[in-house]
Amino acid sequence: MKLPAPLEAVIEALQQLPGVGAKSAQRMALHLLKEGPEAMNHLGDLLHHAAEKVGFCECCGAFADQPLCPVCADPRRDPAVLMVVAEASNVLSFERGGHFRGRYHVLGGLISPLKGLGPDQLRIRELLKRLEDGAIREIVLATNPTLDGEATAAWLARILEPVGMSVSRIGVGLPIGSDLEYADDLTLDRALEGRRKV
Amino acid sequence: MKLPAPLEAVIEALQQLPGVGAKSAQRMALHLLKEGPEAMNHLGDLLHHAAEKVGFCECCGAFADQPLCPVCADPRRDPAVLMVVAEASNVLSFERGGHFRGRYHVLGGLISPLKGLGPDQLRIRELLKRLEDGAIREIVLATNPTLDGEATAAWLARILEPVGMSVSRIGVGLPIGSDLEYADDLTLDRALEGRRKV
Repeated sequence: MKLPAPLEAVIEALQQLPGVGAKSAQRMALHLLKEGPEAMNHLGDLLHHAAEKVGFCECCGAFADQPLCPVCADPRRDPAVLMVVAEASNVLSFERGGHFRGRYHVLGGLISPLKGLGPDQLRIRELLKRLEDGAIREIVLATNPTLDGEATAAWLARILEPVGMSVSRIGVGLPIGSDLEYADDLTLDRALEGRRKV
Repeated sequence: MKLPAPLEAVIEALQQLPGVGAKSAQRMALHLLKEGPEAMNHLGDLLHHAAEKVGFCECCGAFADQPLCPVCADPRRDPAVLMVVAEASNVLSFERGGHFRGRYHVLGGLISPLKGLGPDQLRIRELLKRLEDGAIREIVLATNPTLDGEATAAWLARILEPVGMSVSRIGVGLPIGSDLEYADDLTLDRALEGRRKV
């Protein structure tokens, strides 16, 4: 006996989600089924609602259910400082801390020759357009400290510095609460390189 | 900044699924959002479709998108042997093996005084009704070898034996491919108890 086809279809779709394998997708679907049709319909409704309502900020590319995201719509945010991140979810990480008072620009990915992603596939034209009126004076490059993230930051720094921008890169080093013993060599190297006067 | 409310609602609903925590629910929702509204709508449609089509077999209680599940509808299955399981998903596990040729009865849970589940909350009345016409002669109790599973099996055996049924319990012991070294004491005890002549 196989599972009914409509249930198999749900399991297959759940399996496409990150971190969900065949077993956990089946467990989720069977759980929903056990809860009754209301539970399934409820999740279905929520998904349709989110698909209809949630999109991306016209200005920075972060998640928004309005034309502008809450950060771009907030007049108290510093218009002179712009943080460039790869993904819309990165904005959430910085906003959780709540210490950055500038605005954001989401690239929508990283330059990655291996994945065939070049500058043209990213929101770089939009970034340059935002710099045109001269309000932005400082740019913080906050892509991940990975191969692609570093390459993208270096590439951006090269095109942004000639425009007269003050460009910085987020600090790299040992994370707070970590142990020297478990840090990898590259992180230690970079932590030493990035040392600051006390 | 918080996530847009419709997205938060999706994340909250995903978190109700088994094995899904706050972080993975957010990751899933953001993945869907990044894929575009079509991906979200697609999953929503599949859920609605499954909620509408998939239910439980009128006879045995297994998953079915027809009044009868494929097993109950199959005239080649042995009508004299009935396997009693706790959950509809247990039927799938046995059907995967494909060696059991009888039919099933899903209890919809186990007797558990701690969870306030007594025989009346399970499909036991339906089970007794199926035994009335005398076609079923053998019953295999295939609840999990756990506290509740054993208690439910013992309880069922006590009420089924007086009706003149041949009642058996699935074998308990070392799983195939396992190592004596890692088996727990109770399993070893039961494996010894359940030894069979070669």
